[in-house]
Amino acid sequence: MAKRKKIKLGAIVHGVGGHVGAWRHKDAITDASVNFEFYKQQAQKAEAGKFDLVFIADGLYITEHSLPHFLNRFEPLTILSALAAVTSKIGLVGTLSTSYSEPFTVARQFASLDHISGGRGGWNVVTSPLEGSAKNYSKADHPTHPQRYRIAEEYLEVARGLWDSWEDDAFVRDKESGVFFDPEKLHRLDHKGEFFSVQGPLNIARSKQGHPVVFQAGSSEDGRNLAAKSADAVFTGHESLEEAKAFYLDVKNRAAAYGRSADEIGIFPGISPIIGHTQEEADRKYEELASLVSIDKALQFLGRFFEHFDFSQFPLDEPFPDIGDLGSNSFRSGTDKIKSKAREQGLTLRQVALGAATPRTDFIGTPEKIADLIQRWHEEEGADGFIIHSSVPKGLDDFVDLVVPILQERGVYRTEYEHDTLRGNLELPIPENRYAAKALSEA
Amino acid sequence: MAKRKKIKLGAIVHGVGGHVGAWRHKDAITDASVNFEFYKQQAQKAEAGKFDLVFIADGLYITEHSLPHFLNRFEPLTILSALAAVTSKIGLVGTLSTSYSEPFTVARQFASLDHISGGRGGWNVVTSPLEGSAKNYSKADHPTHPQRYRIAEEYLEVARGLWDSWEDDAFVRDKESGVFFDPEKLHRLDHKGEFFSVQGPLNIARSKQGHPVVFQAGSSEDGRNLAAKSADAVFTGHESLEEAKAFYLDVKNRAAAYGRSADEIGIFPGISPIIGHTQEEADRKYEELASLVSIDKALQFLGRFFEHFDFSQFPLDEPFPDIGDLGSNSFRSGTDKIKSKAREQGLTLRQVALGAATPRTDFIGTPEKIADLIQRWHEEEGADGFIIHSSVPKGLDDFVDLVVPILQERGVYRTEYEHDTLRGNLELPIPENRYAAKALSEA
Repeated sequence: MAKRKKIKLGAIVHGVGGHVGAWRHKDAITDASVNFEFYKQQAQKAEAGKFDLVFIADGLYITEHSLPHFLNRFEPLTILSALAAVTSKIGLVGTLSTSYSEPFTVARQFASLDHISGGRGGWNVVTSPLEGSAKNYSKADHPTHPQRYRIAEEYLEVARGLWDSWEDDAFVRDKESGVFFDPEKLHRLDHKGEFFSVQGPLNIARSKQGHPVVFQAGSSEDGRNLAAKSADAVFTGHESLEEAKAFYLDVKNRAAAYGRSADEIGIFPGISPIIGHTQEEADRKYEELASLVSIDKALQFLGRFFEHFDFSQFPLDEPFPDIGDLGSNSFRSGTDKIKSKAREQGLTLRQVALGAATPRTDFIGTPEKIADLIQRWHEEEGADGFIIHSSVPKGLDDFVDLVVPILQERGVYRTEYEHDTLRGNLELPIPENRYAAKALSEA
Repeated sequence: MAKRKKIKLGAIVHGVGGHVGAWRHKDAITDASVNFEFYKQQAQKAEAGKFDLVFIADGLYITEHSLPHFLNRFEPLTILSALAAVTSKIGLVGTLSTSYSEPFTVARQFASLDHISGGRGGWNVVTSPLEGSAKNYSKADHPTHPQRYRIAEEYLEVARGLWDSWEDDAFVRDKESGVFFDPEKLHRLDHKGEFFSVQGPLNIARSKQGHPVVFQAGSSEDGRNLAAKSADAVFTGHESLEEAKAFYLDVKNRAAAYGRSADEIGIFPGISPIIGHTQEEADRKYEELASLVSIDKALQFLGRFFEHFDFSQFPLDEPFPDIGDLGSNSFRSGTDKIKSKAREQGLTLRQVALGAATPRTDFIGTPEKIADLIQRWHEEEGADGFIIHSSVPKGLDDFVDLVVPILQERGVYRTEYEHDTLRGNLELPIPENRYAAKALSEA
């Protein structure tokens, strides 16, 4: 492998938070999920910290038991486009499901975001874990897990094909002769596959970075294969460095099996640092946050991963109940992990629910400790970069003000942006236009 | 009818233009259709002119004969969201088709735009005239004209229902008690119709203006009925004041038949002013623009309205050919008008093609003449407002700098925004939440 790239960083911006109790914190902005000023401040803070990207997660189904943030939040493409106008270097990555959308529209909207931002767009491809999504999209059934990934694979192929509709030098724009474009450099995809028939061409050109950066966020077998074959980066989550290293190695090996170099795919675990000037202060912050989560809310939070299953019917202090296959068609890798951990460690339902809703991770401590961990995970090949979740108000501000300078001081993280495209900063290759490449090879 | 509202104005921003030759003008910015700085400048100029809204048109199918602007342009929701971040008062209206999208996604994206902009979002509902669109969306056939309108009607019903998912005071956000929202004020739509089954609720609240403003842009019988029944405004186009008055009266009467007041629906013809300090200068500008259009390009432009029909097979200087029913399943009202005008006036194919591609309208002249016409169309009830197309570079700048002050001087147009929502500025009522209204009537 070539010289190791420096650490990359992303900030997941999600309003009142992925943590069940975050909105109840005394300093929390309780309408943050639909507050543009909040998103703008967070994106600009991340840009001040030279982050590679901001990340907007998403979901397509809510019930009254959903997390507060999920109930009332911005849609990714719209909020990312707005953030494009008030930032200049940071990447803009959003989740969009291949199970409930059309590749022509989605390829186009991401390409448009990519042009608006001057080559900073990115798409986190997901297949929609929530079964209820089908009910919002006139569908009788949620597609099965393997089917969702077959759809996603074809979908991504179509999107990449549409993105190549125009060669980079197709637009001549010669006023004198009246030639606006060279028809030889316009290509129709004419895709006919199992799930999609898409003629093209797309009505927007490639951007400065060629294609938007493609993230993939599923960690199941199917998810890993899709990532290894076609993604530029993987958004994942791990409880330990050992787990992270195993995942990292596995995905890089799978990518190699598809003929790709390890450098062409970045692995980004999400982490939720809680920072204090002392370890005690950080622990206190964690405890304060944990105290805001009732056991009822924790059970609801857990239930969402299992098709909104009602766990309150079971005794809290007995072993985690046997719920069979439940969850395997939604968040497969996550629910598998919860079940096997509960079995192996003999956890009670209460422990599992609170562990899921207010996890006590290693990333709680002083700025030095957080920086050490980040550096170690990077050096030992558990991660190429990290997606930073802020569980507490001002969490991102603390990270940028206190942790980033340490990483910069140590020379493992940039002090200035190297490029003005996301692909440039992530040191990912610009995909060749498939038609231009073909023309060249035939020349 | 209550006291007549003042004139409302919108600016259609469309890069290198709706005019075939506009990009060849010596002052044209040839990449304007994907140039964010251009869109930003235009939106800010329109806002400086106290315009009610900017308008982004759209289409879902191109061929190599499409207008330059159509080949490579921003997608409406993304560009409007970006413009939301760099403007503060002006409305942001974009075209989106109900024939090739999902109401859950579209209702949500417009609601998100509406929140990002603080209540300035608007949706121009179209049914996709271009038959080729089906080929980009895995569909065997483009739905027929009447079917498209049946779909649109149900679609809009679903979108409005989803927008009411949350009552305006649903979000309690009480940190102390841990109550984030009042479950009594969250409503599931549970829609099951001919074309859509959508459960809801939507995962975003209503904005300050209740619902995004709904424009409708079809002028056929079906289009007029849809507008009269459910739209807040109609985007149309007319060649004469008489035609405009007839249309205006017809739509207002249809609205009355649905029990709506004439004030609840605004009629906005599009006009393409070409402004000179003298009539001669304006005429010269028109001629210069017209000279940039070859007859080949004019024939292609005409062909797009007729399902990309190839008119070049007919003699140019003989009467407009009999092409039967062609066009009635795409741009029905437009193609009907072209055919009947050609017949009535005995026009040749050349005259029809050039007339379509470079129309010589009344709105060519001095700022006073343009202002007079606008005032007259408004006074005589041909229009409630206008959507301004800029056929020549700096056309919008000229309009704002030269025509707007005259209208303001005459007291028929605002000198300051009255509101910071689009609905407020258009003086349209905020739609009651259907569930809150029901609860109130039952109390």
